[in-house]
Amino acid sequence: MSSEFGNLLKISVFGQSHGKAIGVVVDGLPAGEAIDLEELDRFLDRRRTGKNRLSTARKESDVPVFLSGLENGVTCGAPLCAVIENGDQHSSDYSELRDKPRPGHADYTAYVKWRDQADMRGGGHFSGRLTAPLCIAGGIARQILSRRGVYVGAHLWSVGTEQDAPFPLRPTKELFETVAAKPFPVLDDQAGERMQALILEARQNLDSVGGVIECAAVGLPAGLGDPMFGGVENRLAAALFGIPAVKGVEFGDGFAAARSCGSANNDPFRMEDGRVVTETNHAGGILGGITSGMPLVLRTAMKPTPSIARPQRTVSLSAGENTDLVIHGRHDPCIAHRAVPVVEAVTAAVLLDLLLEGNHGTF
Amino acid sequence: MSSEFGNLLKISVFGQSHGKAIGVVVDGLPAGEAIDLEELDRFLDRRRTGKNRLSTARKESDVPVFLSGLENGVTCGAPLCAVIENGDQHSSDYSELRDKPRPGHADYTAYVKWRDQADMRGGGHFSGRLTAPLCIAGGIARQILSRRGVYVGAHLWSVGTEQDAPFPLRPTKELFETVAAKPFPVLDDQAGERMQALILEARQNLDSVGGVIECAAVGLPAGLGDPMFGGVENRLAAALFGIPAVKGVEFGDGFAAARSCGSANNDPFRMEDGRVVTETNHAGGILGGITSGMPLVLRTAMKPTPSIARPQRTVSLSAGENTDLVIHGRHDPCIAHRAVPVVEAVTAAVLLDLLLEGNHGTF
Amino acid sequence: MSSEFGNLLKISVFGQSHGKAIGVVVDGLPAGEAIDLEELDRFLDRRRTGKNRLSTARKESDVPVFLSGLENGVTCGAPLCAVIENGDQHSSDYSELRDKPRPGHADYTAYVKWRDQADMRGGGHFSGRLTAPLCIAGGIARQILSRRGVYVGAHLWSVGTEQDAPFPLRPTKELFETVAAKPFPVLDDQAGERMQALILEARQNLDSVGGVIECAAVGLPAGLGDPMFGGVENRLAAALFGIPAVKGVEFGDGFAAARSCGSANNDPFRMEDGRVVTETNHAGGILGGITSGMPLVLRTAMKPTPSIARPQRTVSLSAGENTDLVIHGRHDPCIAHRAVPVVEAVTAAVLLDLLLEGNHGTF
Amino acid sequence: MSSEFGNLLKISVFGQSHGKAIGVVVDGLPAGEAIDLEELDRFLDRRRTGKNRLSTARKESDVPVFLSGLENGVTCGAPLCAVIENGDQHSSDYSELRDKPRPGHADYTAYVKWRDQADMRGGGHFSGRLTAPLCIAGGIARQILSRRGVYVGAHLWSVGTEQDAPFPLRPTKELFETVAAKPFPVLDDQAGERMQALILEARQNLDSVGGVIECAAVGLPAGLGDPMFGGVENRLAAALFGIPAVKGVEFGDGFAAARSCGSANNDPFRMEDGRVVTETNHAGGILGGITSGMPLVLRTAMKPTPSIARPQRTVSLSAGENTDLVIHGRHDPCIAHRAVPVVEAVTAAVLLDLLLEGNHGTF
Repeated sequence: MSSEFGNLLKISVFGQSHGKAIGVVVDGLPAGEAIDLEELDRFLDRRRTGKNRLSTARKESDVPVFLSGLENGVTCGAPLCAVIENGDQHSSDYSELRDKPRPGHADYTAYVKWRDQADMRGGGHFSGRLTAPLCIAGGIARQILSRRGVYVGAHLWSVGTEQDAPFPLRPTKELFETVAAKPFPVLDDQAGERMQALILEARQNLDSVGGVIECAAVGLPAGLGDPMFGGVENRLAAALFGIPAVKGVEFGDGFAAARSCGSANNDPFRMEDGRVVTETNHAGGILGGITSGMPLVLRTAMKPTPSIARPQRTVSLSAGENTDLVIHGRHDPCIAHRAVPVVEAVTAAVLLDLLLEGNHGTF
Repeated sequence: MSSEFGNLLKISVFGQSHGKAIGVVVDGLPAGEAIDLEELDRFLDRRRTGKNRLSTARKESDVPVFLSGLENGVTCGAPLCAVIENGDQHSSDYSELRDKPRPGHADYTAYVKWRDQADMRGGGHFSGRLTAPLCIAGGIARQILSRRGVYVGAHLWSVGTEQDAPFPLRPTKELFETVAAKPFPVLDDQAGERMQALILEARQNLDSVGGVIECAAVGLPAGLGDPMFGGVENRLAAALFGIPAVKGVEFGDGFAAARSCGSANNDPFRMEDGRVVTETNHAGGILGGITSGMPLVLRTAMKPTPSIARPQRTVSLSAGENTDLVIHGRHDPCIAHRAVPVVEAVTAAVLLDLLLEGNHGTF
Repeated sequence: MSSEFGNLLKISVFGQSHGKAIGVVVDGLPAGEAIDLEELDRFLDRRRTGKNRLSTARKESDVPVFLSGLENGVTCGAPLCAVIENGDQHSSDYSELRDKPRPGHADYTAYVKWRDQADMRGGGHFSGRLTAPLCIAGGIARQILSRRGVYVGAHLWSVGTEQDAPFPLRPTKELFETVAAKPFPVLDDQAGERMQALILEARQNLDSVGGVIECAAVGLPAGLGDPMFGGVENRLAAALFGIPAVKGVEFGDGFAAARSCGSANNDPFRMEDGRVVTETNHAGGILGGITSGMPLVLRTAMKPTPSIARPQRTVSLSAGENTDLVIHGRHDPCIAHRAVPVVEAVTAAVLLDLLLEGNHGTF
Repeated sequence: MSSEFGNLLKISVFGQSHGKAIGVVVDGLPAGEAIDLEELDRFLDRRRTGKNRLSTARKESDVPVFLSGLENGVTCGAPLCAVIENGDQHSSDYSELRDKPRPGHADYTAYVKWRDQADMRGGGHFSGRLTAPLCIAGGIARQILSRRGVYVGAHLWSVGTEQDAPFPLRPTKELFETVAAKPFPVLDDQAGERMQALILEARQNLDSVGGVIECAAVGLPAGLGDPMFGGVENRLAAALFGIPAVKGVEFGDGFAAARSCGSANNDPFRMEDGRVVTETNHAGGILGGITSGMPLVLRTAMKPTPSIARPQRTVSLSAGENTDLVIHGRHDPCIAHRAVPVVEAVTAAVLLDLLLEGNHGTF
C-alpha cells in the first residue's frame, strides 16, 4: 500500500514538497498510446497555483520530465516514470513546525510515525504538491480512456455553503470540456461568482474554506468491477481518499440517498435504442459494485485548507506543553477548485485499471 | 479483490442467499485468542431478522459452524473457516426476477457480468445475507481488539430525515455496550422512536427508507496507517463499500467539513496527562491517513432497501422491452438499523489488520 | 498472503489435518463453466492414498461438498467453496509431538509462530492433506483451461536417483491423458518399476525418498505474463512453493541451463505453418517472464517425506534438552508420485489466472 | 505485479537500457536509517562492468541520484526514489533487432506483448541494466538489516561445470565480507581460476556460459513467513525470478534433496546455548515456509548470456520467414559473477520486508 494504488495499472507516487523532485511511476500502461504532451500540460495547468487571486503566490511550473516508458511520445509498455523538479521553495518558513504541529495537518501523525526524521518542510510527502504527479498519471489515463470513448470530467459542486448545479442525467464530453476550459470550474457561473466571493472572504478573514467536487465518467461499458470488496466504489474510494484533504466519498446520491425512500431512489430500467438504461441515475452508474452503463457519478468532500494565517493553539513536542502557533508562508484559502482535475485524474486512473481488467465474469 | 479484503488479515466471504451455505475464511488471525462464542452470538444476534415488527418475517438462525482455525474455542493460527447453512428459503419468489431485473438491485449488473448463470435467488452473492459471515469475522476481530483496549461501537445516526445524537468527543466502551444492548441502536431513544415510526410508515406505504450509521473506535494507538493510498481512511472505505447498500463513507466531519472553515475545522492540539490530544475531533482521529490517537469516527450512508412492494418499472431482458414488476416475498422496509453491527464488524476487521501491521514507520 | 494465491482468480485454502474439515474458496472463476464432477473425482483420485502398497494405509475418501459458487454443476460467478470433511484420524499418534518437534517438519517453526496453540495433529495446516482442496481448485481450473485448448499434464521425472524420460519437445493432451491413466505416473514404465522398487526399499529401511515432478502446459497463447516480478515464472513459483515439501522450482532447462552454453541453450526461432516457433525449448516456453507460445515446462523438487519410522534426534521444548523421537502412525515412504496431480493443479490455477488477465500489453 | 515486489516494503523498478534513465522507488523504508553512500557505491561496484577482461567494455558509472526519501543521508519515511542516468550507448547496434528477435532474449515475447512499440534497444526494460536500481534498493535494505544483526552474502557457486565450495553450515558476516572483497566472488580461489578460464574460453568460442549463485542470510529470527503461499520461499522465489536470466530457484539442498532420503535430509534438532538449532541445515533455514533461525540458504540458476557473437537462426517478423542473425555490440560471455550482488540485493529486500512484518503469529 502506502503511496501506490492499482491492480493491473499500478501508480506509485514519490517525493516531498521541498525535496529534490516529485514524481510518479505508472506500471502497466498499454503500449502504443501516443501521449499529447500539450493536452497533458493543459490538464496539469488546471491544478497549478499562481493563476489568480484565489491561489497562493507560489509559482509552480511543474514541467514533467519523462525518464522512461515513453519513446517518441508513445508508450512502450515499460513502466513510465515522470519527474518534476522542485523549484521555488521557502523552507525557512517551516523551521518552527518540526516542534509545533500545525492543527489539521499531518505534522503530528508523521512525527509519531517517523519521529524526528519526518521531512515536513511544506508538508513533505503529505503536501498538495504530490497531486501534480497524480495528475500526470491521471492525465495520461484520461487520454487513453478518451480514445475508447470514455470521458471523465468534474466540477466544483460546492464551496462552503455555496452550491453549483449538479451534472445532468447524461453528462457529455462537450460539457466536461466546457467546464475544464473555464478559469473557475463550475457549471453555473453565477454560483461560481458566489463561491469565489466566499474564498476571498475567507482569505480576508485569515481563514480558509472547504468544498465538494463532483466527478462523472461517461462511455463506460456495463459489467466492470467485482462484487463486494472488489467493487468499482471500493476501488475508487480506496484511491480517492489518497488525495490530501478528502474526508468523504459518495456515489450517486450518496448520503442524500440515506434520507430518501426506495420508491424515489430506485432507478427504473427502460429500453432505449435497444439497450438497457435507467430513467434516473440515483445509483451513480453502479449497482452491486458493478457498472450499469449509466454515467458514473461520485463526489469527494475536501476539508478547508488547514494552513490559516490566524494564530492557533498547538503543543510543543519538545517541551510537552501547550503553546500557540502562527503559520507564515503562502497558502490557498481554498484548494477545492484546484483539486477538481486531481479528482478527475485519480478517477481516470482507476477506471483505466478496471478497463484493462475488462469484464472477466465470463470467459 | 472481489469478495475479500485485508492485508495481513485476509477476510474472504463466500455463499449465495439461497445456496447451500454461506461463510467466511479469516486468514491471519493471531493464535491463542480465545473466542467467546456466546458473546459472538450476541453480536450476530444484533443483525438478525424476525426480532421485531421492523424486520422481515424471515427467520435466520445463523448459527456458525467452525470448520477450521479454532481448537477448543481458541484460534490456532491456521485460517479460520466458519459456515452458516442456509435454511428457510422461498426461491419460488424469485423465479420472475431472472428476466426482470429489480430496480436498485444488482440483478441487471450481475446478468451483464455472469449472464444467465448468475444465481440471483434472494440476491445471490449480493444479498444482505452475506453480512452474517462478515459479522462472524468482525465479531471475532472485535473480541481480539477489546483485549488490547481497542473498542469499536456504532449507532444509527439517522433514518430518513430523523437524526440521532452524535457520539460525544470521547466515546467509551460503556457507551458502546449500552447502545449495543438496546433493541433499537440509538443514543437518544426519543429520536429512536421517531426513526421507528418512519420505518413503519414506509412499510405501510409499501416503501422503504435509508439511513446513516456512525461508527467509532477508541483506544487506537497513534501512528497506524500509511500516507496517501495506504491510509486508514483508504483501507476502511475500501472495505466498507463492500457492505451492500453503502453509497457513501465519510470520516470525522466528512461532508460537513466541506461546508466549514479552517478556523472551525482544525482541531487544536493540547497536552493532557502528558499525551497529545486535540480539543475537538473534526478529523475523526485521522490526519494524513494516520491515526492521531483520538477516537476514530466514520459514517456510512445506506440507501433505502431497493425491494419494495409497490409496482415498479423495469425491462424484460428476454423480450428487450419495457414492463412492470411487482416484487413478492418478505423484505425489510429499512436495513440501516440491522447494518449497525455490520459496520462495526468491517471496521473492527480493518483495524485489527492495521494493528497486526503495527507502526512500522521506524524499526 | 499466507494460505492464498492469485490475482483475478484467488484461491484460499483452509483446514487442519485433524480438524473438522478442510476446504478451499475459489474467488473469480468465470461463470457458465460446467464442472464435470466425475472427471474432477478422477483427478482427485490420483492423489489419494491407500491405493497401493506404495502409500499409507490411511483411507481418504475426500469427497468434496460444494457450499457455493456451483449451481446445477455450473459455476455462477460467485466464489466457489468446496469442503472435505475429515474422517479417519488417529490424533493419539501425535500427542507426543507437541513437545518433541519432528525433524524436517514444520512442528518447530509452527511452535515459534503460534506457540502452544498450534494445532500440529497430523501436521495441522501444514499437512499434505491440504493438497486435496488445492486439487479441487486446480482440477476445476484444468477443466476450464481444456475448453480453451490449454492442457496441463505432469509426470514423475525422478525418484531418488532413478529418472524417467523427459517430456518430448511438443507434449500433447493425449500424452498427458496416458500418463494420468497409469497407476504410476511416468512416461517410461521400466523407469517406473525402478522408482517403485526404490520406494519399497526405502519403506523396508524405515526411510523415505524424494523425487522431482515435471509439469507441462500446451496451447498457451504467447504474450501472457508481465516483465520482471510479474512474470509467469514468478507467479508459478510463488504458488508452487506452497505445496508441502517443494524445495526447488525450475523452468525449461533450469539448473541444467547454468551448466550449458549460449550456443546450445538459445532456442533458434523458426517459422512453422505461418507462426513463430523455436527449434528447441530450453526456455520452457518463457522468455523475459512472458509466454512464447511453446510448451510451458517446469520442474519441482520434492524432499523426502520427513516422517520416517526410525528413531531420530530432536529436543524437548518443555525441558529444553536433547532427546530422541520415534514417529508412530502411518506415513508415505514417498509423496512425489502422489504430488504429481497437485503440481498440475497449482500450475493450472495460475495459468487460468493469467488467461483471465489476458495480454493487456496493448489495448 | 509487473516491475514491482514486496508487501510492506514495495520496490518498483523502471527504465529501459537506452532510455533517458533507469531507477527505483522504494516505498515503506523505515525512517531514521542512515545510508552509507560509500558502502552503497562499493556494493553497486560489484555488479559494474568494464572491471576486467571477463566483462563487456561498456562503461557504466551508475551513480545514483536520490530524488526523494533521503534527507541528509537519512531515510525520512517517504518513498525513496533513486535514478541513474543512461550514458554511453550504441543504439545503432540494435536497429536490426526490431525485426529479427534474438534467440534466448525477450525480443519476440516483448513484440507479442507490446508490438512495434516495444523499446528493445539494449534489451529495453528486460536489460540486465535494470539490476542496477535493484542493487540500490537491496543495498539499502542490506545496510538496514546489518544494523539488526542480519547479514546477507552470496558467492558464485558454479560456472558451467566448474563448482565452488559450498557455504559452511554457519556462514558468517566476515565470510560474506571476504567474498565480497574479492575481484571474483568465490570461496575457493582455485575453483575461481577454473571458472574464469571457462568464461574466457567461452568468449574465444564466440559463446557464453551460465552459472549458479548461492546466497545465504544469517541472524534471522525464527518465525518469519506464513504457511503455504505466504512462505519465505514463495516470497523470495517470486522476487528472484525477476532477475534477468534466472531459470531456477532452490532452497537448502533443493533439487539434491529430491535425490536424498529422509534419514539423511531431515535436520536433527539440538539444544545449543539454550536455543534450538539443527545439526545440519538441509532445509536451508526454512521449515513449512517459516524461518527456523538457522541460516537461510538458496541458489539461483542463471542461464548463459543469450547474446553471443556467432551467427544464429531466427525469423524476420516482417517477412514472416526464416533468416540468420549476427549480434554485434559488446556482451558479457557470462553474467553470473556480476549477478552475485543482485541476488544478495533481492534477497535482502525480501528479508527486510519480512522483518518489517515481524512474526504476527501471536499478538
